[in-house]
Amino acid sequence: MAVTDPIQRLIRELSRLPGIGQKTATRLAFHVLRSPAQQARDLAAALVEVKDKIRLCSVCMNLTETDPCALCQDPSRDPHLLCVIAQPPDLLAIERTSSFRGRYHVLHGVLSPLDGIGPDDLRLRELLTRLQGEDPEPIEEVIVATSPNVEGEATAMYVARMLKPLGLRVTRIASGLPIGGDLEYADGVTIARALEVRRDM
Amino acid sequence: MAVTDPIQRLIRELSRLPGIGQKTATRLAFHVLRSPAQQARDLAAALVEVKDKIRLCSVCMNLTETDPCALCQDPSRDPHLLCVIAQPPDLLAIERTSSFRGRYHVLHGVLSPLDGIGPDDLRLRELLTRLQGEDPEPIEEVIVATSPNVEGEATAMYVARMLKPLGLRVTRIASGLPIGGDLEYADGVTIARALEVRRDM
Repeated sequence: MAVTDPIQRLIRELSRLPGIGQKTATRLAFHVLRSPAQQARDLAAALVEVKDKIRLCSVCMNLTETDPCALCQDPSRDPHLLCVIAQPPDLLAIERTSSFRGRYHVLHGVLSPLDGIGPDDLRLRELLTRLQGEDPEPIEEVIVATSPNVEGEATAMYVARMLKPLGLRVTRIASGLPIGGDLEYADGVTIARALEVRRDM
Repeated sequence: MAVTDPIQRLIRELSRLPGIGQKTATRLAFHVLRSPAQQARDLAAALVEVKDKIRLCSVCMNLTETDPCALCQDPSRDPHLLCVIAQPPDLLAIERTSSFRGRYHVLHGVLSPLDGIGPDDLRLRELLTRLQGEDPEPIEEVIVATSPNVEGEATAMYVARMLKPLGLRVTRIASGLPIGGDLEYADGVTIARALEVRRDM
């Protein structure tokens, strides 16, 4: 009873966010109560705006305000190179490095039989359309950049098998010790993999 | 450039929340993008509502929709017992235990000279008005329930010194080892304090 309804409601809505439990939600709610009303209104507006304005790019399936997205419309991006990623944040992570100048395709998930996610739940049909549809793109190499974990590897294998018959070069991002990492503190699986896929110098 | 403006705006607004950095804000923003629009709208509405509807109770300074708040209006609460706390979440923490049936007074802060927070920044004047104003409440005991840290202790000392001349009983919540805690893992200051304020059995 000590908590009024609007506060309770805000706590409930906040605790629906991932990684935000009851305690953090309570802390955030009381922070909102302490801070200027404009700040709460700005956050509320940003939440509504993002859902109203953002949709999927019909080409690469990335989140966008315009369709096709700015990346797909950018003539300076290499149309021969396509990077397949699992989720939109992965695109951000790659773009931040400024080391890739090709185009992207977002699968919106990885194969995960335990969670009931099969090939039909990913944007694989859209990927095939880009490669061999009525108006195919001049893609020569597909880099599969899903994460090097169980689901990511399985998805990469599936994509590779699906694309190989099309006569494309299909590559996989390298995995091994992170740059600047310390061998002493690296996990065993990573070290074993780094040894296995060692390169000639 | 890969992130559109509305997403960037949402990330910026989210990262203003305490304990939410750029990375968590990005994760939350993409979660919002993945989840149903209604959920984002509910959170937005809760944010606006909480700032529109919630104000301070003119009696106890707690956050409330009605003035005086439900707690101050509740005739079943003991009017002779007043619990002084630093912040509204502290009230929640005490109410959750169902072990206190008196009333509250929220200071909205603790003394912290380093942060420039002095007695005038706390709701101490309102506390004095409740005790010796034109229409004083029949308070017999004031329990000072600020946290047992440096600022909380200093604030408790200040409140005690301020109230003692009024001929009231002023008490302090006990500090010591947490119930269910393990002596082996307790910090030294807590153990020292628990030894110092030991009780006869």
